[in-house]
Amino acid sequence: MQGCSEFDLIARHLSHLGISRDDVMLGVGDDAAVVTTAGKPLAMALDTIVEGVHFPANLPARCVGWRALAVNLSDLAAMGAVPCWALLGLTLPQVDEGWVAEFAEGIHTLACQHNVAVIGGDVTRGPLSITVQLTGELVDTPLRRDGVKPGDRVWVSGAPGQAAAGLKRWQAKGATVIHEPLLQRFLYPIPRVSLGIALQGVATAAIDISDGLLADAGHLAKCSNVSLVLDPMCLASFANGQVDSHSVLRGGDDYELCFTAPPDADERIAQIAEANQMSITCIGVAVHGQGVWLDDEKIEPVSAGYQHF
Amino acid sequence: MQGCSEFDLIARHLSHLGISRDDVMLGVGDDAAVVTTAGKPLAMALDTIVEGVHFPANLPARCVGWRALAVNLSDLAAMGAVPCWALLGLTLPQVDEGWVAEFAEGIHTLACQHNVAVIGGDVTRGPLSITVQLTGELVDTPLRRDGVKPGDRVWVSGAPGQAAAGLKRWQAKGATVIHEPLLQRFLYPIPRVSLGIALQGVATAAIDISDGLLADAGHLAKCSNVSLVLDPMCLASFANGQVDSHSVLRGGDDYELCFTAPPDADERIAQIAEANQMSITCIGVAVHGQGVWLDDEKIEPVSAGYQHF
Repeated sequence: MQGCSEFDLIARHLSHLGISRDDVMLGVGDDAAVVTTAGKPLAMALDTIVEGVHFPANLPARCVGWRALAVNLSDLAAMGAVPCWALLGLTLPQVDEGWVAEFAEGIHTLACQHNVAVIGGDVTRGPLSITVQLTGELVDTPLRRDGVKPGDRVWVSGAPGQAAAGLKRWQAKGATVIHEPLLQRFLYPIPRVSLGIALQGVATAAIDISDGLLADAGHLAKCSNVSLVLDPMCLASFANGQVDSHSVLRGGDDYELCFTAPPDADERIAQIAEANQMSITCIGVAVHGQGVWLDDEKIEPVSAGYQHF
Repeated sequence: MQGCSEFDLIARHLSHLGISRDDVMLGVGDDAAVVTTAGKPLAMALDTIVEGVHFPANLPARCVGWRALAVNLSDLAAMGAVPCWALLGLTLPQVDEGWVAEFAEGIHTLACQHNVAVIGGDVTRGPLSITVQLTGELVDTPLRRDGVKPGDRVWVSGAPGQAAAGLKRWQAKGATVIHEPLLQRFLYPIPRVSLGIALQGVATAAIDISDGLLADAGHLAKCSNVSLVLDPMCLASFANGQVDSHSVLRGGDDYELCFTAPPDADERIAQIAEANQMSITCIGVAVHGQGVWLDDEKIEPVSAGYQHF
């Protein structure tokens, strides 16, 4: 963490985030961090979140810190990688030590849950945005987006739409509903890291749901040059009094995994769901063709993207 | 590179930057990039540059792209690492394909010069800022900031102050002076990558000059718990009709290396200077104590920092 004048104060809050790892030779405080590697392939993700674009301006600092790391953990989950080291780029409009302390706590808590060490980065002045770069080790072949085969089933973890529904509830009611379970799904998204690792050798392809279920399924279809035919009735089952169907299909920020696997993997997937104490639902099937279909209605890519705010 | 709607267009300009490397298993286009490693220690840097803070708002896009990578290459140079893979986080206020194409060319040109592959990242909407994360391999022990020993000489590569003087000239004259050599030092800073690699096993400590010579020398002194006594006459020799002494001492963005080495390394350093076709100047000596001194005048850390703009 390098900075000048009062930003040095801020940097102190960020100098010991996450766990201590034996493979970190040199952490925060030099021109770069140094890690030792075991020679395994590494998965590397980088995601930026911007105030007013990826999170609302009044989001608690703890949630902002959590989210900045969570979106990257989710990317590694979608590759089946084991997270190791994070670098943090924090751009702040002004020095607010209380805000930074809370922000740091959000990152620290989630980093510790996933054995991640925050080994370096940069604090600078500017409009609020946070970039995290996360590196993980692969113990098997990565779960790519382009591996879907016709005949594969399409699966999704958890209940898509809850984060978007939680956000709407918060926008309507503000901090008075902060302890509602639905809102927690938006404020503290849970990256499916252990699920991704368990899916190595089982799933043919995977993606995490950040842009919305239909949009991200569309990415799988496009990268794999197949068509994904989803079951509207099945998807409708994710909607209820609190979660509208638009949130299910197009809401972003769920950070669940959407993946594909051949039919003979059904039993293994059921075991993985039980071991991870989560629901995993078959929502469709891959066939020859292109795009995402709800039964016989083709979803246009332009309408599927999630614009965050 | 993941994006939605028109940002997909932009992402295409960023999908093949730098060289192709055999160790990249999976590049731009999935949830994360995947690289194979040889088991060597890795140096990892992350730096953000923000419009109006780290570069002026009217800086040509090609220079912005160059700078975003250069600042990170400079960090790895200061560790003595061999650069390998970069991830790019680009935050843009609006879609401007021409700007992005030029920006991409700036990164691409410099990445190719240093055998760097840009393997992934993120394009998002927001106030203009760029974060690059760069990873390199270490073939020897890293050049840290905390290795200075009393009795070491203090060295600097090139001629500090030129970038800051070039910026002042540009602010006064605008694009009419864009081809002046001094201005090129600001627009296209040259990270001292090969110098850093050559200094492994020779230098006891190193830092790159991003905040200004006195400020960065101050970081070396603080991390190593020594005092650096610099020779004002020697530093004055960097000033001339075009470069004022304030720029020499406190100007930032030179991206030269400031390092220390024992006196018996003088000949080796002369050889390295010749092999790299650059000047390397002895500017002082390390002694027991604290802080940076110009002869017998102690430099206050608060006055040494470079505030960019």
